Amino acid sequence: MTPMEIALREAKDAAARGEVPVGAVVTDAAGNVLAVAGNEVEAGGDASAHAEMLALRRAAKALGTKYMLDCTLSVTLEPCAMCAGAIAAFRVKRLVFGAYDAKSGAVEHGARVFMQATTHHKPEVIGGVEEVAAGEMLRAFFEGRRG
Amino acid sequence: MTPMEIALREAKDAAARGEVPVGAVVTDAAGNVLAVAGNEVEAGGDASAHAEMLALRRAAKALGTKYMLDCTLSVTLEPCAMCAGAIAAFRVKRLVFGAYDAKSGAVEHGARVFMQATTHHKPEVIGGVEEVAAGEMLRAFFEGRRG
Repeated sequence: MTPMEIALREAKDAAARGEVPVGAVVTDAAGNVLAVAGNEVEAGGDASAHAEMLALRRAAKALGTKYMLDCTLSVTLEPCAMCAGAIAAFRVKRLVFGAYDAKSGAVEHGARVFMQATTHHKPEVIGGVEEVAAGEMLRAFFEGRRG
Repeated sequence: MTPMEIALREAKDAAARGEVPVGAVVTDAAGNVLAVAGNEVEAGGDASAHAEMLALRRAAKALGTKYMLDCTLSVTLEPCAMCAGAIAAFRVKRLVFGAYDAKSGAVEHGARVFMQATTHHKPEVIGGVEEVAAGEMLRAFFEGRRG
């Protein structure tokens, strides 16, 4: 499985738990999986428990280091301001994301965190990977909620 | 003690542990302290362990709810993009901060998270409270490091 396929599987598992279906995975330079996570906002009553935050914290623990200069974070949705800020804080080398998020995204929309002179780190960014699969999962989830 | 005095005490304790001296406190509508935190980045090897993130997560746990529509977060330094995003995610009613941070701040500088149409929530913001005390603590810490 590619990292994004793993992230999509995490997103699907999150949906099954009643969470917004977003999944994330951190891989090292060799492609080894360091950590995976799906959203856990509802499970923990923790509005900050986005998949990216959890995967980054778990990867830091696995690595025993607070910086991830050789790592890639793959996530099914464009990160929000909080998660983009965390990506900069953890000095993640590369961000790969699936669906673009015009409503809450802060990489290509809104706060555009990495485009600010104040960002402490600017990762390589690749957006739109498995965009359709990631976006469809989110749409199905929110349509199901409204139904 | 005022909430900012409590946050300053947390910042001082953080400095004594070798952490960047930033402290935070979450209070409810009646002024009761729900959670306090200082930076724990070095202690946990966790680049996301900013005082604000920890105080917000602890307060959510104390409240048993993911939203803090009646709460105030008081923090000694202008929040970064990650922490500003978390403040929006937790729907914090009011943000009170001490020193302005032209280098990393994302409230009045850089990403200006709450001024974006994409923010899910816009707290009331009061900056510059005990600004001198908070700023002096940070300056002394970084000067000590360089010395």
